Amino acid sequence: MTYCVGMLLKDGLVMLSDSRTNAGVDNIATFRKMTIWSHPEERVLCLMSSGNLAVAQAVTNYLDEGLEPDGERLTSVPTMFRAAQLVGKAVRAVYEADGQSLEAKEPGAFNIAFLLGGQIKGGEPRLYQIYAAGNFIQATESTPFFQIGEHKYGKPILDRALSYDTDLRAAAKLALISMDSTLRSNLSVGLPLDLLIVRRDSFAAETRRSIDENDPYFREIRQRWSSSLREAIATLPNVPY
Amino acid sequence: MTYCVGMLLKDGLVMLSDSRTNAGVDNIATFRKMTIWSHPEERVLCLMSSGNLAVAQAVTNYLDEGLEPDGERLTSVPTMFRAAQLVGKAVRAVYEADGQSLEAKEPGAFNIAFLLGGQIKGGEPRLYQIYAAGNFIQATESTPFFQIGEHKYGKPILDRALSYDTDLRAAAKLALISMDSTLRSNLSVGLPLDLLIVRRDSFAAETRRSIDENDPYFREIRQRWSSSLREAIATLPNVPY
Repeated sequence: MTYCVGMLLKDGLVMLSDSRTNAGVDNIATFRKMTIWSHPEERVLCLMSSGNLAVAQAVTNYLDEGLEPDGERLTSVPTMFRAAQLVGKAVRAVYEADGQSLEAKEPGAFNIAFLLGGQIKGGEPRLYQIYAAGNFIQATESTPFFQIGEHKYGKPILDRALSYDTDLRAAAKLALISMDSTLRSNLSVGLPLDLLIVRRDSFAAETRRSIDENDPYFREIRQRWSSSLREAIATLPNVPY
Repeated sequence: MTYCVGMLLKDGLVMLSDSRTNAGVDNIATFRKMTIWSHPEERVLCLMSSGNLAVAQAVTNYLDEGLEPDGERLTSVPTMFRAAQLVGKAVRAVYEADGQSLEAKEPGAFNIAFLLGGQIKGGEPRLYQIYAAGNFIQATESTPFFQIGEHKYGKPILDRALSYDTDLRAAAKLALISMDSTLRSNLSVGLPLDLLIVRRDSFAAETRRSIDENDPYFREIRQRWSSSLREAIATLPNVPY
């Protein structure tokens, strides 16, 4: 399983992914689910995946090496919309190559989802969720975050506290709190995490960090969040009836 | 969809259910998912269901009217273990009657889960989760709560804050906070709620209450919990890197 969250905010983008991959509880490995393509002062794109790892890696390879017939890559597409289309095309190319065999072996095995966030010079920052069929939706001011993978445990806190106007570093804190709830409730989501913060019109990663269990900030947040929650609960009155 | 949570604590039991039933977003209705059988100073049993409503109602009818061949009912079984077995038998009786037709129409349609909590004189308070196959598991001190239906949104807060030693009314508060997170994140879970609190060795409902949007305590909890969370988030430091 996986948990990835992407946020499109007025000041830019926040992307966070875990790195646990499993094919059953006795076959667990660490694979980064975040890939970044950037060119200074011109573009930064970040792709996160959940689902079948072989499909995700094949898509990423197509995006790196270029997709036939015209060899389009994420480093060359002119807009974020075209970037999302290219990811969709790559998903369809992998489906064409492997989909039938996968589905014949196990129905539903062609199971993949992506979040693509970024900004390309001349355009706005954009965040897309791309489905297994290669189609996609775009985040807006009223729905400023997307989640893929094990999304439910970490959704309530985002529903309550995140808005388009949230400051980038406060939003990254919320993403980490949301991840912490998921890590606690689902064993198949695991450290280390990959965090990317992109400020609008900077066309570069402002923060790009791998966070493991020894990260002092993440440790502090986890501990203080737990104790804050317990305190908040304690101050609420018990059921009076 | 549905969300029900049952808690087995050192002082007794807390059971909470929503009442939204839907067959698609344009066909929503209110059905109570909690049924209580009690006999003063002798027994109190509470059954909550999630899944196919027709199956749930058929099971409840069997438990009321008595199950063949010997007409056993929840009002007559001698122990909670036998009560859980009886619910399992009723599920199997419904499967025998309707399962094949349901599954022929739609694979997976025989989809049902129950939480059964209660105490019968001579025995301890017990909480069981009963599956569609009629088998069941029992809550213990180390796993003092079970959830059925849309359980993920409301699980993190219980994982963090509930233990076997939690006071009954504090536990009921946690159940309502857990329900609130679920109500906010999933439209298919809805008010009114049914809350039951049973104190150990009382063999009666200490609290039995229907909670709707006008309930002053639930309104207060929802508002204060939201603002406490926002304050708790605000006091945590933002991402420093």
